[in-house]
Amino acid sequence: MIQDPNVKKVDLKLYMASRRELIDKALETYIPKESAYPYVIHQAMRYSVFAGGKRLRPILTLAAAEAVGGDPASVLFAGCAVELIHTYSLIHDDLPAMDNDDFRRNKPTSHKVFGENMAILAGDALLTLAFEVLSRPENLKTFKADILLSVIREISLAAGTLGMIGGQVMDILSEGRKEINANTLEYIHTHKTGKLLLASLRAGALLAGATEEQLKAITDYGTYIGLCFQIVDDILDVEGTTEEIGKDAGSDAAREKATYPALYGLDRSKGLARELAKKAIQALSGFGESAQPLREIGEFIVSRTY
Amino acid sequence: MIQDPNVKKVDLKLYMASRRELIDKALETYIPKESAYPYVIHQAMRYSVFAGGKRLRPILTLAAAEAVGGDPASVLFAGCAVELIHTYSLIHDDLPAMDNDDFRRNKPTSHKVFGENMAILAGDALLTLAFEVLSRPENLKTFKADILLSVIREISLAAGTLGMIGGQVMDILSEGRKEINANTLEYIHTHKTGKLLLASLRAGALLAGATEEQLKAITDYGTYIGLCFQIVDDILDVEGTTEEIGKDAGSDAAREKATYPALYGLDRSKGLARELAKKAIQALSGFGESAQPLREIGEFIVSRTY
Repeated sequence: MIQDPNVKKVDLKLYMASRRELIDKALETYIPKESAYPYVIHQAMRYSVFAGGKRLRPILTLAAAEAVGGDPASVLFAGCAVELIHTYSLIHDDLPAMDNDDFRRNKPTSHKVFGENMAILAGDALLTLAFEVLSRPENLKTFKADILLSVIREISLAAGTLGMIGGQVMDILSEGRKEINANTLEYIHTHKTGKLLLASLRAGALLAGATEEQLKAITDYGTYIGLCFQIVDDILDVEGTTEEIGKDAGSDAAREKATYPALYGLDRSKGLARELAKKAIQALSGFGESAQPLREIGEFIVSRTY
Repeated sequence: MIQDPNVKKVDLKLYMASRRELIDKALETYIPKESAYPYVIHQAMRYSVFAGGKRLRPILTLAAAEAVGGDPASVLFAGCAVELIHTYSLIHDDLPAMDNDDFRRNKPTSHKVFGENMAILAGDALLTLAFEVLSRPENLKTFKADILLSVIREISLAAGTLGMIGGQVMDILSEGRKEINANTLEYIHTHKTGKLLLASLRAGALLAGATEEQLKAITDYGTYIGLCFQIVDDILDVEGTTEEIGKDAGSDAAREKATYPALYGLDRSKGLARELAKKAIQALSGFGESAQPLREIGEFIVSRTY
């Protein structure tokens, strides 16, 4: 890892745990209580949102705001909105008509617990709630309406067919094909995971008043880290244990999924991931200590085992 | 129908046809072309959006803007966003795990044509696109950012678990139950259809700068007309032909769905629908000629055969 010797090391484990606590508390307030009518849909939404996610996306939103000198707590709502969208995408991905996964984060998936119909609706509801959270009038106390509007646009584009959904579509279409095209594979990975990761960073930076130059650096960081994250996911599907990764290990290979290890082999995939993390961290060279969490998150993403 | 003798009659058929043309043209520009990558998702989105819908919701958005003295063309984007959400809800409602319908508007449903996985994603994509359309920077040329933000909030709340999704959840939970509670039935109808119809009206009025009093009148109109619309839907499911209504007639009864005719009988349901349309039109008594389209749409909603 490239590191400025003058920059203090962050205790990343502690940092992430405290951020996760902050984020969970905020999510708790954004999702209607289980006692809110109709109960079952709110139970289903909460079941998946509070299933033990890493909260990487909102952590990135807060860290990006911090990097450009903003108050991380003020952008919690935007990070939470992205997390709601991420959770909806997992619920729908797990459906029998999609990946047909029974477990996620070591727990039965939404449709196994609530039935397919409620799982579909819980996903729909989380996606809808994300935009409700982004458009709350209380956000106007801290941010200008036009900035909030541009964040809504940023996130909707990243989640749509030119972003996450586009990646998911190509992932489905590529399944079971023996020959995987390198361009298609990169498209899937940068879109399915990358675009929303990038939006979580850009939202934090935009809200915190990033300069053009800062926004460009954060965008470069996010582009590299997004692809890196998905390559590591592929590697973990081969090398991780089912218990560590919380879902069936080896499931990509079983489904003949388009993955980096399948196309390039494990060693080259690991090299690529390391290269991308290095580039991501280099993109932040113009920042001082305020970007240290982002740098170490970059390091975490490439070295994680879950 | 109560009518001010000084108000000119509108040729509603012509009026709706010309509005529909305007709306279709706008929708055409909002949804990525079929030639946009990944092709199949855009094909699926377009297949359902251009399947011959009545465009009632965007027509209401434009008519509400007109009623309060605004330019109907300027609020097209908001009406189209609601139509995208309406279309997503139909695609997901038709899924095998939900109502399992093979036909909609006399055409095979999305999952019959594109498969269940693409139908789920097409619905997700239309919902996401709605918020992208609402947050486009070009809207800022005509409207203030804070008004746009309040319209996003209005629509997201109407589409969420306290609105449309809530109604759908209770509709599913009530299916097959012999005893239908009148309160639950009213909840389902006002939420499943009513909330989004109401939001389409309020969005148009808000954008066009409605006064508090005007907004209240439009809200009353929308509340009555929303429930009326769904009761007529129930009646048509009993009395209409499969060809007229574009889906299987009698399917509600076959599924033991919670409907007004099932609970109150056909005659009383018709009386209720007429009563609601009358109240809706009365709510507009403070408006002059500019609200005549809304009045006649109210009349259309109760007398329609499709």
